[in-house]
Amino acid sequence: MFSECFNNVRNQAPLIHNITNYVTINDVANILLACGASPIMADEAAEVEEITSICSALNINMGKLNHSVIPSMILAGRKACELGHAVLLDPVGVGASRFRLETAEFLMKEISFTAIRGNISEIKTLLKGSGSSKGVDADAADALTGNNLEEMTDLLKAFSKETGSIIAVTGNIDLVCDSSTCYVIENGRPEMEKITGTGCQLSGLMSAFLAANPENRLEAAAAAVSAMGLAGEIGWSYMKPGDGNAAYRNRIIDAIYNMTGESLECGARYHLIGNSDNR
Amino acid sequence: MFSECFNNVRNQAPLIHNITNYVTINDVANILLACGASPIMADEAAEVEEITSICSALNINMGKLNHSVIPSMILAGRKACELGHAVLLDPVGVGASRFRLETAEFLMKEISFTAIRGNISEIKTLLKGSGSSKGVDADAADALTGNNLEEMTDLLKAFSKETGSIIAVTGNIDLVCDSSTCYVIENGRPEMEKITGTGCQLSGLMSAFLAANPENRLEAAAAAVSAMGLAGEIGWSYMKPGDGNAAYRNRIIDAIYNMTGESLECGARYHLIGNSDNR
Amino acid sequence: MFSECFNNVRNQAPLIHNITNYVTINDVANILLACGASPIMADEAAEVEEITSICSALNINMGKLNHSVIPSMILAGRKACELGHAVLLDPVGVGASRFRLETAEFLMKEISFTAIRGNISEIKTLLKGSGSSKGVDADAADALTGNNLEEMTDLLKAFSKETGSIIAVTGNIDLVCDSSTCYVIENGRPEMEKITGTGCQLSGLMSAFLAANPENRLEAAAAAVSAMGLAGEIGWSYMKPGDGNAAYRNRIIDAIYNMTGESLECGARYHLIGNSDNR
Repeated sequence: MFSECFNNVRNQAPLIHNITNYVTINDVANILLACGASPIMADEAAEVEEITSICSALNINMGKLNHSVIPSMILAGRKACELGHAVLLDPVGVGASRFRLETAEFLMKEISFTAIRGNISEIKTLLKGSGSSKGVDADAADALTGNNLEEMTDLLKAFSKETGSIIAVTGNIDLVCDSSTCYVIENGRPEMEKITGTGCQLSGLMSAFLAANPENRLEAAAAAVSAMGLAGEIGWSYMKPGDGNAAYRNRIIDAIYNMTGESLECGARYHLIGNSDNR
Repeated sequence: MFSECFNNVRNQAPLIHNITNYVTINDVANILLACGASPIMADEAAEVEEITSICSALNINMGKLNHSVIPSMILAGRKACELGHAVLLDPVGVGASRFRLETAEFLMKEISFTAIRGNISEIKTLLKGSGSSKGVDADAADALTGNNLEEMTDLLKAFSKETGSIIAVTGNIDLVCDSSTCYVIENGRPEMEKITGTGCQLSGLMSAFLAANPENRLEAAAAAVSAMGLAGEIGWSYMKPGDGNAAYRNRIIDAIYNMTGESLECGARYHLIGNSDNR
Repeated sequence: MFSECFNNVRNQAPLIHNITNYVTINDVANILLACGASPIMADEAAEVEEITSICSALNINMGKLNHSVIPSMILAGRKACELGHAVLLDPVGVGASRFRLETAEFLMKEISFTAIRGNISEIKTLLKGSGSSKGVDADAADALTGNNLEEMTDLLKAFSKETGSIIAVTGNIDLVCDSSTCYVIENGRPEMEKITGTGCQLSGLMSAFLAANPENRLEAAAAAVSAMGLAGEIGWSYMKPGDGNAAYRNRIIDAIYNMTGESLECGARYHLIGNSDNR
């Protein structure tokens, strides 16, 4: 039940360690507070192991990646794995440069990620080891449709099996898969793309949901995706004449602030695709 | 009079040098503009002495601390002291890692701070040289109550005497002490904790109040704390259905923007505890 | 026609590479999305050439300048020039330290900027090789008036001739000049100065306008300045009791989000000063 996943976040108030980009770092912190979690942002190698030890999950985001922060990602990631914490990778813009792709591959080799969340172009880049990317946005050619949905879920399940990670792809349709099951989530609005960092915010949110639901991580990841999309729908319903993407940014965080497990359960729109191999 | 302290900020429009974390740096800049001051953010060692020389106060914030910025903090802090500027330390999350505690202790040894502002857990960590911390938030076990208030003010006065700094502790009750006098301030709302960086914003604001009131620094620090709390109350009164912590963040800065010395004087709720030794 | 300049941005959705300060980086990203462009923030030397190659313009902003980012600015700037992309320099606070002035001069020697945008004090500092600056804000003594307008446009045209760059000065009156023509733009509101980063946002916006109008860059730069000022006017018209600079910040970005080429054309207030030498 998505309601229980969210209620666990509110009740446990997990502390989340974020090594994330400076573009959207403030919004990530505020959405974590909005959902009932507590954020800490820390990327200094001298302290990341200690910081991650007092937290319940680690959120690693590659947006505006710099060389200097990679050792901190590795140190924190290994320590979090050692402690059994959830560790999430958000491979922002991984198709935009060799440096980002090589870094993502290096991180995936060194750290056992609980979940990897990105847009469709980013995940396809990781899948294929090369990719096209319109910067940090998804390439329109990669968009999910009714036609390629089944093919994509099969690919994602295989990628989940290979990596051992939950794979979450967000876009017009959202997919959250492990090696056998895929949530197909239809919450959200296209205008969310006009706000910088809704993806980064979701990665923060998902880290909190994973932290508070260690026995039920696939559903927790799906619940986070649904909560973010639903917040986009609720936030949009409050838009007034003259409002645009800046107002919308605030209204989405506010919708998470006011969301309960029950209102999430009510508004969530999704279905499951089981494992055809085991049916 | 708190009104005069605020009017001095509006009239003098002091330039404030901030070496502060990237999580809340934008909000710190905007609240400084809101109160009538002018912010400059600069942490490159090659320029911090020159930058701080054209300013009236220096605000050093340890949130998301990195090794590389410590030399800049030292250079700027020494220069600001040499020029008689107000220098404030915000020891964000000082109990969360040895690195932060050692850095705070190093900064306090090298720089004579005019004021140190933190939550109760941060200040207790500095007092005791070790501490617990729920990341960057105060530990509930440390909360001020009617019962431990007197004990705490005595501790803070002693710490102020030892350091020569005004000590400001913010939380459900706010205390602003020098070695003999303590302001007990009751402005504010608990929902302010659900916004990242209200503490950082207050440190920026307090730096401006200290800069504009060099002859009256204890009262100026208390006036800043009261102004921030009052802004939290006023901002909350403007909250509408659907609003949450993102709207609230904006409304607090807006309340400072619209606050006058007179409205601060009107809304301030505080009392003084004198020095029992000298009574 | 300003309308065409804006419509080209909306139709082409140019990808803009920003090497910009962490204070206002989120607002720069959101205003680029608001105008129909797509932002990418990247300052790691290992990737900036590759990143800038997939973009249409490069926006270099010196606010909160650090030594470590200068090689990235040079690498990206040279590559962007080589590819014929628009490259913009925003010399934030260039008069505030020798380090900033020397860096600006070094960048201008190494990179052929399409446009340089700053406040009057910043541009005068570049013109004279030294300057006064109230931090990152313009010095009141430098303000444009009816009396010194002609003298200033002559100076700016000469500076444009010397540098080969479009020179844009924003303040109470905005000037956008090449070596022969100057747009004098009267859109905007004085309260825009009470928001951190409206200048940085304009530099992002201008980069998008330059990218989408390669054959018509002077007019495109002027259209961007007018759009930003008009957004300030429209945003102000939505201000409600209790609103301040934080609400205003959001409303300006929202006004860009809702602006069309036609509404820009309608609201733009400007006149041209031709080249008196060639009249």
